Amino acid sequence: MADTPRILPDEVQRLTLQAPLPLDCGTELPDVQIAYETWGELNADKSNVILVCHALTGDQFAASPNPVTGRPPWWPRLIGPGLPLDTDRFHIIATNVLGGCMGTTGPASNAPDGKPYATRFPVITVADMVRAQRAVIAALGIEALFAVVGGSLGGMQALEWAAQAPEQVFAAVPIATTARHSAQNIAFYEVGRQAIMADPDWCDGDYIAQSRQPQRGLAIARMAAHITYLSEEGLKQKFDRGLQDRDTASFSFDADFQVESYLRHQGRSFVERFDANSYLYITRAVDYFDLAGAHGGRLADAFKDSPTRFCVITFDSDWHYPPADGREIARALTAAGAEASYIEVETDKGHDAFFLEEPRFEAALAGFLNAAAEQRGLGA
Amino acid sequence: MADTPRILPDEVQRLTLQAPLPLDCGTELPDVQIAYETWGELNADKSNVILVCHALTGDQFAASPNPVTGRPPWWPRLIGPGLPLDTDRFHIIATNVLGGCMGTTGPASNAPDGKPYATRFPVITVADMVRAQRAVIAALGIEALFAVVGGSLGGMQALEWAAQAPEQVFAAVPIATTARHSAQNIAFYEVGRQAIMADPDWCDGDYIAQSRQPQRGLAIARMAAHITYLSEEGLKQKFDRGLQDRDTASFSFDADFQVESYLRHQGRSFVERFDANSYLYITRAVDYFDLAGAHGGRLADAFKDSPTRFCVITFDSDWHYPPADGREIARALTAAGAEASYIEVETDKGHDAFFLEEPRFEAALAGFLNAAAEQRGLGA
Repeated sequence: MADTPRILPDEVQRLTLQAPLPLDCGTELPDVQIAYETWGELNADKSNVILVCHALTGDQFAASPNPVTGRPPWWPRLIGPGLPLDTDRFHIIATNVLGGCMGTTGPASNAPDGKPYATRFPVITVADMVRAQRAVIAALGIEALFAVVGGSLGGMQALEWAAQAPEQVFAAVPIATTARHSAQNIAFYEVGRQAIMADPDWCDGDYIAQSRQPQRGLAIARMAAHITYLSEEGLKQKFDRGLQDRDTASFSFDADFQVESYLRHQGRSFVERFDANSYLYITRAVDYFDLAGAHGGRLADAFKDSPTRFCVITFDSDWHYPPADGREIARALTAAGAEASYIEVETDKGHDAFFLEEPRFEAALAGFLNAAAEQRGLGA
Repeated sequence: MADTPRILPDEVQRLTLQAPLPLDCGTELPDVQIAYETWGELNADKSNVILVCHALTGDQFAASPNPVTGRPPWWPRLIGPGLPLDTDRFHIIATNVLGGCMGTTGPASNAPDGKPYATRFPVITVADMVRAQRAVIAALGIEALFAVVGGSLGGMQALEWAAQAPEQVFAAVPIATTARHSAQNIAFYEVGRQAIMADPDWCDGDYIAQSRQPQRGLAIARMAAHITYLSEEGLKQKFDRGLQDRDTASFSFDADFQVESYLRHQGRSFVERFDANSYLYITRAVDYFDLAGAHGGRLADAFKDSPTRFCVITFDSDWHYPPADGREIARALTAAGAEASYIEVETDKGHDAFFLEEPRFEAALAGFLNAAAEQRGLGA
């Protein structure tokens, strides 16, 4: 990432919301731009739309390469002709979340005074992110989604969509997610935020105006979070105590162990593509996510008499959002009278399994979407 | 902590090793001072010595208040008259580990040139720590220990003692520990080290000479590690998503949640009592700990025909060193022909349970030590 605000190429498609966006914190955000990508044809009655919601540090480039970072698409195994999110059949939309840094309005964007928002950006919530997406869908002339699908923070958005606009969501697939971010997860994100804010180059949030960037703090935040995305078993199988480019310990603070070298690389490459203030705001939104809390303390009340059909998917080695969180969602949905299935996929890949090759997960997702498409009258 | 090397009061008892200490890295360390405390009377044949080994950031003040920090003793529930480590019966010794910062020679100590070692201090291992303790015991005229007891890094020292000097250890109690630090744990410590080294006040390790201290980095390191010392269930019960001093979310980056406030406090208070370079060196020693690796890849070979009796204790909610690690130790001991019992204590207190009120743990420890004392001919 450059030290000045990123210049986004023309390939980054955006629309500007016509009305100010009302936020949970009580203010409104004017001139919100939302960056988005689409794949597959929209059908005549606009009934074949799947909204794909990205995770914490993801972006809208789910099925095509990111022209800014050059990174490959993050769901190439799931989105495409003949794949579970079949572009021969569905019209796929992915937006960059509110507060993000890939073209959507966030803390790195300029405020009405022409200077970057930085910490003047309002603290946002997952509900705000979904409100922004609903405005995009409306602006595109689409009345309802066939499905909303996402993992992690994307799964929170899927749940929030179904709670906020049940009549607009035919099917929802929350993957590797939770209805309430736990104390342990708040703790991990707090370590990351403190690492960013402790970096002198954060400049009280004003680093863009000062042509600086808290690279060290952001890298440490990423390293701490990244550990929670992998399972202990996965780490053991991938690295165990293997040494990096040497046969014996160096008796130094170099990256002796492969796992150290891997983590340092994760940190370094992250700062090239992500904005530190976006990281603060998006992790904060996740901390605040508590769907039960927002509905009088009872999760089922968020989905009362929901017309949406749900497929809740978890991974057994995920300790970031463990299966117990998914089961709690499924139980609440059933208690609310909603149609819900729950699938726990056996894997050693941990939380990040939904990004990786996991045939049982892919088969479950395809099976659910195919059945829902038939119910919706979307021919194969 | 002051910005200059800590002035230790006379109450900190020390002895200087007469010979240079040979280290695993291949060098020798001259003029090593070891700080230690004792409680209870040494009996006539010096057969009633229990060595208590402290954890990562602990010190020798296990059973009396620390005169430097003013903190209370860390094992007041276990050491004292009539307690499991009964000072009416046993002579208890606790040393500050090599590389530590409570009077023992470490990176904050002056090198022979009169300037602080800082990063010129050699990288040490758990085996080096035990070598230093063996020299102390010898200097005190003690030929063998009745028992060596410790949790976490203290438990590694107990295992290393039994492996290094089996004839000198009648009984060993490794608690909440492992025979090999896992990839996940290396990863967590690496995050902490990177946070310290990223702090400009670390000054490439030379902060004492420059009258600075990497407080922010050290606090973040402590916060990241501290999460691993608690169980998710414990965090949930203690904090859940409770808010700190407010009824509703502040929509800010203040410590809204109690768990954030608690973690920040842990970080802040840690920097007042601990040296950042000591943290680097001691975590590195723990990373390097792999008792099987040091014995040809087979853990049992570390304890072949050991005359020591072992009591391996784990806590079921400990995910830093999970019960599986303790069971692996117990299995290896049995395979080696050693006398070993294994106790898994049910608790929601996580790794830190051995510092806390845990009656079943205390009873198990007392029972084992009493039985061993009878075998050793130490009257009740």
